[in-house]
This record gives sequence, structure tokens and C-alpha cells, in this order.
Amino acid sequence: MSAPTGADAPGGADAERWLARAVQLATENVAAGGGPFGAVVVAADGTLLGEGQNRVTRDLDPTAHAEVVAIRAACRTAGDFSLAGASLYTSCEPCPLCLSAVLWARLDRVVYAADRHDAEAAGFDDREFYALWATERDDWAHPRITEHRLDGSVAPFDAWRASAGRTAY
Amino acid sequence: MSAPTGADAPGGADAERWLARAVQLATENVAAGGGPFGAVVVAADGTLLGEGQNRVTRDLDPTAHAEVVAIRAACRTAGDFSLAGASLYTSCEPCPLCLSAVLWARLDRVVYAADRHDAEAAGFDDREFYALWATERDDWAHPRITEHRLDGSVAPFDAWRASAGRTAY
Repeated sequence: MSAPTGADAPGGADAERWLARAVQLATENVAAGGGPFGAVVVAADGTLLGEGQNRVTRDLDPTAHAEVVAIRAACRTAGDFSLAGASLYTSCEPCPLCLSAVLWARLDRVVYAADRHDAEAAGFDDREFYALWATERDDWAHPRITEHRLDGSVAPFDAWRASAGRTAY
Repeated sequence: MSAPTGADAPGGADAERWLARAVQLATENVAAGGGPFGAVVVAADGTLLGEGQNRVTRDLDPTAHAEVVAIRAACRTAGDFSLAGASLYTSCEPCPLCLSAVLWARLDRVVYAADRHDAEAAGFDDREFYALWATERDDWAHPRITEHRLDGSVAPFDAWRASAGRTAY
């Protein structure tokens, strides 16, 4: 990279350092019996907030992707359910689960090294799930998704709106 | 409903019972200071595997949506990271995070009561995030998402393929 580097430069030296750490976490996780994914969350000031390794098979948790684990750890560090302003560096392109977690965590930036095609070549469904998201949900063969309204379907939202002590997110 | 009901009928009596339980969990969660969402995972034989309530603000975890919490609980009950054959009943249409979790958990079926528009009316971003997913990611204004390949980007996948003891998922 010949461009100027800095904490806020997506392709800068700091990005390379954090990405290298994410890749290291991923490789180490394979040696520990886990999936080949690692991620770190870094605050706007360059402070490490959290690290994650894929723990799906070790924790029997299909949502324990490296990025999700890193986001959860970072929120514990920050003491906040919002990571606005922070960045996620991840060894591989975030799958739809992880990118959705990025949205809810209000992260500002994502930088990834390998991509969905590398993941697919290693036997993972990231690209397939991206393809699903690119089609109409009504056309998905699996899973079956059905709306079934009940009397009282919106009662939880009515309760929410009436709750003086609610914490929005 | 005048259609025949049964454990496998999306709109049947069992579905209504499980949906009502999910809605009850959602409403109770508001009273406990949490978000207005609840969900249950039910095995193919009709056994309850796990329940979940939104715990984003209480646990400082932006991924602790009711469906994710229920899936994690169900996996602990099942002792498996796959919930193939099982169904998710949820008080509100799963957001992209939760629907992606459904995909990775290999759930067979999703039935929901309220929808993304009800959630939006209560101040939640589900519909907005669905709209994002319906557009090209390169056109997203936020977050910034950058690929940055490194030497060694695919090293974790090489290690994975070389690992005799890997557990695929």
C-alpha cells in the first residue's frame, strides 16, 4: 500500500495489523478444534475492544461465529450494546448473520481478508446464504416461512409503547 | 382456521399454541425491562427445545434477539449445533440476523405472528435492515465494508482442509 496509513484508513497499516491478528485467531482456532474464522473489534481511537473465534462446534452454538463472538466481547468491554464508531476486522467476509450483527451493533466499518468464495471452497455455506438473500424470500425452498397472525400479535409492541422505562436500541 | 390442524400444520392448533407462548414471552419481557420479542424452538416431535426473550439491553448484547436466544437454548437442550427438523415460532417476523441464524441452525420451519411493519411502528429497524439486504451491498451508505486481502488470507482455510479432526458444520 502506497497510500497514507492511519487508524482511519481502511487499507492502512493499522488495518493490516488488525486483519493479521484476525487471521492469526482463525488459524489458531483450527488447531484448537474450531472453525477457521477469527475477528477483532477496534474502537475509533484504535483500542482493541474484543476478539472472537468461531465456536459453533465447540459451544454447540450455530450463532457463535467469530464476528458475533467478537461483537459480544466488545460490548462487554464497552459496557454498551452499541459499538457505534468502532470497526470490525475479520479473517473472512462476514456472512449474512455476521453482517446483520454488524448492523445491529451499529459498527462503522468492516474490513475483511478472505471472501465468501474462499469460504465456499473450504466447505462453508456463506456464499449460498448470500445467494438466498439475493432472492425473494417467498421463493426460498427451505426453510418454510409462514406468517400467522393471532389476536394479540401486536400486544408486545403495545406494551412496549406503554412502558415508561423502556430502553430503545 | 378451518383447515386440518396438527403438529406439522403451519397454521394448526399447535402452531397457534406455540405462537401464543412466543407472544406471551414477548409481553412478559417488556414488563421485565427487555425488548418486545419472544420465540420458542420446537422439535419435530412437538417437544419444546428452547425459549428466548430479547436480551439486547439487559445483557448489553446486540445479538441477543429472542430467536437467537431461543436457538442457543435449543442447541444446549439438543446437545447439537444443528436443529434440523425443528421449528421456530416467534412473536415477530425474524429480522435478517435471526433469519440467518435460522439458516445456520438448519431449522426446518419458521412461523411468526407480527411482522416487520409492526416492529417498525414500535421503533425497531427490522424493516430498514430488510431494505438494506434488498439492495446491493456496494450501495450501502453505512457501514463501510472493504475487502483487503493479505498474504496469508486463506491460511486458516488451508489449515482447516489439512486438519484431520475438523468438525464440519
